[in-house]
Amino acid sequence: MSMTALVRLRLDIGYDGTDFSGWARQPDRRTVQGVIEEALGRVLRLDPPPALTVAGRTDAGVHARGQVAHVDVPERAYAAVSNRLVHRLAGLLPPDVRVWRIAVAPRGFDARFSALWRRYVYRVCDREAGVDPLRRREVLWHPRPLDLDRMNEAAARLLGEHDFAAFCRRREGATTIRRLLRYEWRREEPALAAATVVADAFCHSMVRALVGALLAVGDGRREVDWPARVLAAGVRDSAVNVAPAHGLSLEEIGYPDDEEELARRALQTRQVRTLSGSGNASEAPVNS
Amino acid sequence: MSMTALVRLRLDIGYDGTDFSGWARQPDRRTVQGVIEEALGRVLRLDPPPALTVAGRTDAGVHARGQVAHVDVPERAYAAVSNRLVHRLAGLLPPDVRVWRIAVAPRGFDARFSALWRRYVYRVCDREAGVDPLRRREVLWHPRPLDLDRMNEAAARLLGEHDFAAFCRRREGATTIRRLLRYEWRREEPALAAATVVADAFCHSMVRALVGALLAVGDGRREVDWPARVLAAGVRDSAVNVAPAHGLSLEEIGYPDDEEELARRALQTRQVRTLSGSGNASEAPVNS
Repeated sequence: MSMTALVRLRLDIGYDGTDFSGWARQPDRRTVQGVIEEALGRVLRLDPPPALTVAGRTDAGVHARGQVAHVDVPERAYAAVSNRLVHRLAGLLPPDVRVWRIAVAPRGFDARFSALWRRYVYRVCDREAGVDPLRRREVLWHPRPLDLDRMNEAAARLLGEHDFAAFCRRREGATTIRRLLRYEWRREEPALAAATVVADAFCHSMVRALVGALLAVGDGRREVDWPARVLAAGVRDSAVNVAPAHGLSLEEIGYPDDEEELARRALQTRQVRTLSGSGNASEAPVNS
Repeated sequence: MSMTALVRLRLDIGYDGTDFSGWARQPDRRTVQGVIEEALGRVLRLDPPPALTVAGRTDAGVHARGQVAHVDVPERAYAAVSNRLVHRLAGLLPPDVRVWRIAVAPRGFDARFSALWRRYVYRVCDREAGVDPLRRREVLWHPRPLDLDRMNEAAARLLGEHDFAAFCRRREGATTIRRLLRYEWRREEPALAAATVVADAFCHSMVRALVGALLAVGDGRREVDWPARVLAAGVRDSAVNVAPAHGLSLEEIGYPDDEEELARRALQTRQVRTLSGSGNASEAPVNS
């Protein structure tokens, strides 16, 4: 067997999560990873298809506009189709998933471990008459009016580095310490409230738990200081409702600009995330 | 039988046209009119349900954010539920159609004949990689880059009052003279071109034919002066492609501000539209 030179590709991806069982490949389920890997395998003539590593492993029903993944493929297979790859994938993929861009990744790039931050947006319509039918797949209907000032006051108290165990589905052996960089609510339209949530990474269902807690503040069921008290308690609180998946979209992943920093960040993150865990990267926390 | 006092209601409506066989009620088809009338009949306890008159009778697959209709119902039936009507309809209607507002119409109001203008938007994505999956139901994918300057130059030559027979599906006995008030293309996002088309009213498939003609100019298949030459020829031109329905959305209907003008406009429009027709209002041109 001859040595095969590999090249690492970065993929920028969008999808409507409605009809997918989430990102991660599963036997006999329609998943985003499975669908893209199959199309890649066909275009690059690789069997079995190459395996993707993703920045944010989204749950079933969660959408993405700015998902990022990487894949290592034989240089020769890539060279044969490189300038037609986006076009070929556009024709092969179903319309609920798109590969916006595919190109050789900078040296040191790791879609998951080089990421500095993830930006999610959660959209909620609080109009009595309901959600714009054309956006009903990506907007939650919350028929009680939301007070965004109250919500922003509560959100500001959650910023910074904390153990977010209270807002995470517990997974043994992995740290739940995260740095929440931004959590703001604003109205994109009169009846459309959008939460922007940015963190270095997220534990499982963390964004949706942070949103669920704030909806209870926004419609008056809870006091402004309640989410911060839940956070401080440090244990998963069953009073926090995890908001439905369909309002959530992964909008952007932030990476360092230069190659040295990409590699340094990847090494550092890999160590931190698996610090108290098994050391197996696949056991590290997912990001939605 | 006792006299029944009627009240005229104005409804503001939105829908995702994907799973409807258009606006107009048809036996054994799922139509927007049919679905709303049935829900209204249930809430108002009227059997048979009351009949809606609409501003823009949209085709199968065409969407609406700002559709307007009116309905005449017994005053007593309305009074019993008036302040809960939006709420009740929100619960009864399927999520692909919404009644944003329902209220007693001003005197002289006729959803169809009082209208001064209709505003449609047609959305086209000209990115090679395809349409944002979350908007694929309302955006056409046109994989060739569009030159909007050329398109706007061509569009400007179509403005004003003309016989739009060249861009209409021929219907016997109704005038095809319309006043095109606005036809502009702009980018809402880098890869998302949107045409705003405003006219006093539209003949059948007129907006989609105007869009189809301009797409051929935008990607270089036709010269800038071609749509104006088609218009001047005055006969339906098979070289004009009618753009697919799913890119089109009825966004707004304009009405006069005061009651006197509403009634005057309704009387005048009814006369003009049926001038060369049978005099039967239901035979007058539709508006998409």
